[in-house]
Amino acid sequence: MREVFVVGIGMIRFGRYPDTWIEELGRQVILQAIKDAGIHSRRLPMVYCSHSHQGRVAGQRALKQAGIVGIEIVNVENACAGGATAFRQAYMAVAGGWVDLAMAVGMEKVAAGLLPPNQEDLDALQGRVLPGHYAMKAVRHMHEYGTTLEQLALVSVKSHENGARNPMAQYRKAVTLEEVLNSRMIADPLTLLQCCPTGDGAAAAVLCSREVAKALGRPLIRVAGSVVRGGRFAGADHNILASPLTREAAAIAYETASLGPEEVDVCECHDAFTIGELLHYENLGFCPAGEGGRMIQEGVTAITGSIPVNPSGGLLSKGHPLGATGIAQVVEIVQQLRGEAGRRQVLDPRVGLTHTMGGAIPELEAGACAVHILIKE
Amino acid sequence: MREVFVVGIGMIRFGRYPDTWIEELGRQVILQAIKDAGIHSRRLPMVYCSHSHQGRVAGQRALKQAGIVGIEIVNVENACAGGATAFRQAYMAVAGGWVDLAMAVGMEKVAAGLLPPNQEDLDALQGRVLPGHYAMKAVRHMHEYGTTLEQLALVSVKSHENGARNPMAQYRKAVTLEEVLNSRMIADPLTLLQCCPTGDGAAAAVLCSREVAKALGRPLIRVAGSVVRGGRFAGADHNILASPLTREAAAIAYETASLGPEEVDVCECHDAFTIGELLHYENLGFCPAGEGGRMIQEGVTAITGSIPVNPSGGLLSKGHPLGATGIAQVVEIVQQLRGEAGRRQVLDPRVGLTHTMGGAIPELEAGACAVHILIKE
Repeated sequence: MREVFVVGIGMIRFGRYPDTWIEELGRQVILQAIKDAGIHSRRLPMVYCSHSHQGRVAGQRALKQAGIVGIEIVNVENACAGGATAFRQAYMAVAGGWVDLAMAVGMEKVAAGLLPPNQEDLDALQGRVLPGHYAMKAVRHMHEYGTTLEQLALVSVKSHENGARNPMAQYRKAVTLEEVLNSRMIADPLTLLQCCPTGDGAAAAVLCSREVAKALGRPLIRVAGSVVRGGRFAGADHNILASPLTREAAAIAYETASLGPEEVDVCECHDAFTIGELLHYENLGFCPAGEGGRMIQEGVTAITGSIPVNPSGGLLSKGHPLGATGIAQVVEIVQQLRGEAGRRQVLDPRVGLTHTMGGAIPELEAGACAVHILIKE
Repeated sequence: MREVFVVGIGMIRFGRYPDTWIEELGRQVILQAIKDAGIHSRRLPMVYCSHSHQGRVAGQRALKQAGIVGIEIVNVENACAGGATAFRQAYMAVAGGWVDLAMAVGMEKVAAGLLPPNQEDLDALQGRVLPGHYAMKAVRHMHEYGTTLEQLALVSVKSHENGARNPMAQYRKAVTLEEVLNSRMIADPLTLLQCCPTGDGAAAAVLCSREVAKALGRPLIRVAGSVVRGGRFAGADHNILASPLTREAAAIAYETASLGPEEVDVCECHDAFTIGELLHYENLGFCPAGEGGRMIQEGVTAITGSIPVNPSGGLLSKGHPLGATGIAQVVEIVQQLRGEAGRRQVLDPRVGLTHTMGGAIPELEAGACAVHILIKE
């Protein structure tokens, strides 16, 4: 396989765009990423577009608005992991030698009441929707390991502090521990500020071969690991704190990149709920099982810590427009590795990791998990 | 790139399955294709699943029902060309050396009133929905080339005659020219029997490397050309009879396969409307522009003709469950090349071609076109 580099990124601020069509949100990030890469749009032969709810051939519609037609365009869906999946497909296309340049775009407009439980989903109808599901994980983690309400809430405090430094974040206001703990209860023990918001957004990335990257003269950010896995979230032992999908995807990504979790300098992980981030610390190998609470409390994952997690503000603060999220994570890591992250810049990172999850319909336990490792050369 | 072969196929009869979940339709064809390939499901590392309206991570849900979890699963959407797009992604994964085995699944349940025009789509709201759009093409073709109502209707007669021979077809009843012409008018001059039905269905194909195919001992059906193109359907000259997408995709596929349209022995094309099939004859290079009507009238594209088109019954008679269609076309070609097509068997074919189109929202003119060429070794 050929080496693949990310040479262009684009992103709009996540939030609410009630008066803007999805094609326009897509158009903006497509043109941004092309401009950032320094290429002419006519050079682009292949685009993967991720979204969950934008209707048929949404990618083609957005690309046409950007003046791009007549090329290979594939729409990709993998729930909240769709963006990361599109990124992997673009990676595969370049690494496999099909094309020298490819783009991954993610975009989503989230209508009000967009995510009602499936009427056939008995678990959901009885209340086991995602907040409830993660609340159960939180309670179990507290029971097993003594994790505290304060530790959970500290994840949200960190995310909002970071999000306040990110011009692309949906929420740009720092919050105190008390504000998090006292915000409206959603699913005990998870309060409102511990659940990611819904919102609209788009992000794009241009990938290419080493030859093209060198010719373009952009910083060399190499995709050193790229994994998508689908299947059950819980293990065969029904332990809801373990995530075999995350562990397996991360293990393969580390192996491909020839490094271990201790070498990751900056991470964007799927913090849809505060407890999720603590579990990801453990399942990505940043700490042993049960020590997620300690990590956040000791500031290890703050921007100034030894392994900063979600410097962008993460899903909790930057926002989570499903299909766009995975690519927005890549955008953040690329900015960090380039040293272009402004007031949220991590100190001189070389290795970045993104982790995205999608699906998790509890009844069916069908989902996807993606892990990507990017290295600055 | 490595050579890729189709070694397993599965399909359920297209039609109405109001009491069956989409996961069950998917499960059936997944297991059929695995059985047909003669592999154990645990050998399958990667699956692309096509659908337009089955909700989030539908592929994961269906695969879980088939007992397949923990592998790379990607949901793909390209409107009516989604199945063909998923097939191409699986082809790319094997050809690029990522995996030795991959599956493409297409599945769709079409709810009543599923395809209403987008409320923002001014063209559609004023009546330029697909039947009206194709009716305009028909009238233009009649005007330009003297194509007759009877010639248009003969496409439906042929399709239904073929469909009557196909146990997997939604409609298995031959119809007369008079019945076609006298059926309810949908969009003048297209009558009901000249428009494909809506319906449910699923189909699957297993692809693999030459090494694996030889070890499995299945007939060697090679994917000799594989193209997906997206963009405008009409050309820059606004000629609604030309289809630059089809012409370009076909040209690349022919070039990759090192053959021309005159060497195609059997073809499954996207006959969503009778006029469509006539135009595809022309745009796929089977005859010069304007001679589609003559081709159908002379029986050239009948099962017994020199270039049989849609021996399966095509979309008009076999049915058109969006995401499943492209893969069902591959299933038909593989059966034809294997000599397993029973009462609709074409005489000793060696080269088969599939052609699928998706999108075609007139206002935005954004769509996809896929062409695949399969060769029996």
